[in-house]
Amino acid sequence: MKSDPTTLPSLKSWVQSANAPDTDFPMQNLPFGVFQTADSPARVGVAIGSEILDLAALADVGLLHCEPGVFSRPRLNDFIALGRVAWRNVREQISALLSESNRTLQDDGGLRSKALISRAQATMLLPVDIPGYTDFYSSKEHATNVGMLFRDPQNALLPNWSEIPIGYNGRASSVVVSGTPVRRPNGQIKLPDQERPIFGPCRKLDLELETGFIVGVPNQLGDPIPCERAEQHIFGMVLLNDWSARDFQAWEYVPLGPFNAKTFATTISPWVVTMDALEPFRTAQPVQSPEPLPYLRHEGKHAFDIELEALLKPQQAAEPTTIAHTNFKYMYWSMAQQLAHHTVSGCNTRVGDLMGSGTISGPTRDSLGSLLEMTFNGRESITLKTGEKRAFIEDGDELVLRGWCQGEGFRVGFGTCHGVVLPAKPFE
Amino acid sequence: MKSDPTTLPSLKSWVQSANAPDTDFPMQNLPFGVFQTADSPARVGVAIGSEILDLAALADVGLLHCEPGVFSRPRLNDFIALGRVAWRNVREQISALLSESNRTLQDDGGLRSKALISRAQATMLLPVDIPGYTDFYSSKEHATNVGMLFRDPQNALLPNWSEIPIGYNGRASSVVVSGTPVRRPNGQIKLPDQERPIFGPCRKLDLELETGFIVGVPNQLGDPIPCERAEQHIFGMVLLNDWSARDFQAWEYVPLGPFNAKTFATTISPWVVTMDALEPFRTAQPVQSPEPLPYLRHEGKHAFDIELEALLKPQQAAEPTTIAHTNFKYMYWSMAQQLAHHTVSGCNTRVGDLMGSGTISGPTRDSLGSLLEMTFNGRESITLKTGEKRAFIEDGDELVLRGWCQGEGFRVGFGTCHGVVLPAKPFE
Repeated sequence: MKSDPTTLPSLKSWVQSANAPDTDFPMQNLPFGVFQTADSPARVGVAIGSEILDLAALADVGLLHCEPGVFSRPRLNDFIALGRVAWRNVREQISALLSESNRTLQDDGGLRSKALISRAQATMLLPVDIPGYTDFYSSKEHATNVGMLFRDPQNALLPNWSEIPIGYNGRASSVVVSGTPVRRPNGQIKLPDQERPIFGPCRKLDLELETGFIVGVPNQLGDPIPCERAEQHIFGMVLLNDWSARDFQAWEYVPLGPFNAKTFATTISPWVVTMDALEPFRTAQPVQSPEPLPYLRHEGKHAFDIELEALLKPQQAAEPTTIAHTNFKYMYWSMAQQLAHHTVSGCNTRVGDLMGSGTISGPTRDSLGSLLEMTFNGRESITLKTGEKRAFIEDGDELVLRGWCQGEGFRVGFGTCHGVVLPAKPFE
Repeated sequence: MKSDPTTLPSLKSWVQSANAPDTDFPMQNLPFGVFQTADSPARVGVAIGSEILDLAALADVGLLHCEPGVFSRPRLNDFIALGRVAWRNVREQISALLSESNRTLQDDGGLRSKALISRAQATMLLPVDIPGYTDFYSSKEHATNVGMLFRDPQNALLPNWSEIPIGYNGRASSVVVSGTPVRRPNGQIKLPDQERPIFGPCRKLDLELETGFIVGVPNQLGDPIPCERAEQHIFGMVLLNDWSARDFQAWEYVPLGPFNAKTFATTISPWVVTMDALEPFRTAQPVQSPEPLPYLRHEGKHAFDIELEALLKPQQAAEPTTIAHTNFKYMYWSMAQQLAHHTVSGCNTRVGDLMGSGTISGPTRDSLGSLLEMTFNGRESITLKTGEKRAFIEDGDELVLRGWCQGEGFRVGFGTCHGVVLPAKPFE
């Protein structure tokens, strides 16, 4: 961990729960989200320990200075659109207000009870309107594993993969916030012993353990974002579960890519962790060979040391089983390279665009980011704590993603990204 | 042509240019668009002959009844969101006001000069905010031709093609309105004689002659649109040019589909022709064999007889050359089948979603909807009126799409969908 202009002066808060070493939301984090309570409409907040700081309430009483009204909206987009200077300025104001030495809010019981809401009392909403969702495929281990299962085991990694941060356009309409139940989709399945496909509920429902970043500073059509400056266009990161119907996918994906296999739901975590909060956890990405083409080159470290976990909890189970433990730093292509590639054609981005990492698998058997890989496309199964086995996700299963950067005595966490799978609807 | 409740009572207008047999915009059409003039902001209009009827001006003086304000907005979305009853009601009011026998507007010179704007004086804008753009691949001839060029000539049509209305998520941010210049993109090109890709301007820039439909009545997540009712969810249709960088595409598209090859621009025509205007031109789609799975079945006729043309005009040429003449009715999969398939997984749609047909190629050499097919991926060339040859699009070329339904003594037209290609930007 290095000293950095993004490090904030005081890291201890008068909100005691923020000082616990295992909270995801200490002073070092201050992620932005949108929440509502039983008696108040949706508005912008920042997670601090077990609480939410209500930015709209603070702005209303003149304790937080920003563009009027941006925190009273049900999405972060208008705040994000203000740009990096505003993000940092608001972050600094919030850090000061929450700091142990600051008495303003701490000593004003009336205001505190209005502006500090227990996270347990709040419902989190989708933090951003997402104009476009792109999903990349940037883990070399994942791409190799999938290539072995779906294509040629001898040439699992396609020749274009090590030259291009391969990605595809996802479906933005069905991105949902953590906690939203996910309905098992119906679709076409091609069984090996039948000539024609059948239609019915997905039999190979899978998770994909991913992160996503939110575009904060857009580019105009025809005006690519250079790789060296690409990180400056990113507002922050979330956890992302790219639910996948593997049986639909195998049948539909040639030649235009996955479609119904992925359009039924994509879940993201509600708190957007800013790039400033992640800055101390910057690390080197894997060595890239061959050296990328010039438009994909950047000096310095562009990976982030983010521990990632996936957990599965059957409906009746007392506790979940950790089924994967991996790390964002295994990603071969950086977020900067993804964004530079996405826009090099002249493609424009918009505030709130979501860019998924692709499934992040590590090099070991317990670091695989999908059941497809863990069970060799269902040929094997994993065993849960309850003794139950899983080849793919079953109805009632809850999938939970977690992510955090481990500091010395604190963690900058993402909270959870979770969803329960509901049975497929009978098709009329 | 059959009699139908969607046929309007009087088909002759006091706007004389609307009665010419070759206008795209007679009384039978009344397409919706968004326009602005030098001295007025963007608002909703309807094309009539060589004029635009300003719906905001009519609503302001109480001559057009609808939800307040919807015609004063720079996009059609709020009007579209009112639903089919409102679309038809407004269409009937407009038809009555423009009818030869109606004196209200005809005799009020002051109001007429405010509410009737010459199309030549107006700038057309993107008619809808497009939350999602999906492009299908529904012409059997096109899919076969592409399969022969990119994959295996012996098995050109993939097995899934005749079971699934294959589609992929496109990039909504770069959908532009007709008239917007299109910058030749830079990207990765894999030359056969080199081990690694090069980076530079696209050498195989192509058009794709398509139509698109606009979703007017959305469905909720988890709630598929049945095929039999799918057409009722469609507001109207536009022409669509899905500009394509064939060299980028060939290198990048396996396994996740086209990406940078298509994200730099998609051009649509500015006037949305309603399903009511198209109704008299309903016709049978090609016979489907094998019979589609039950969720893709619908009774009756679900194609539309829409003549389509593509023209190419080199920068210095006096006039364009027609390079393709095809018809929307050649589409194997109907729009209803596309929408039913898109949502059968539970995927939700939103008002303004754009769904492209995919390149529409006919059965003959002069009915191919892309240069890729016309020139066998550049191995041959086409000869223009000027004597110039083209394998792919050159800088300065203007591409023009046209479409119309031919009635008896009139046509329901789409206007044009055009764009000039600018040279690639030098990459810094």
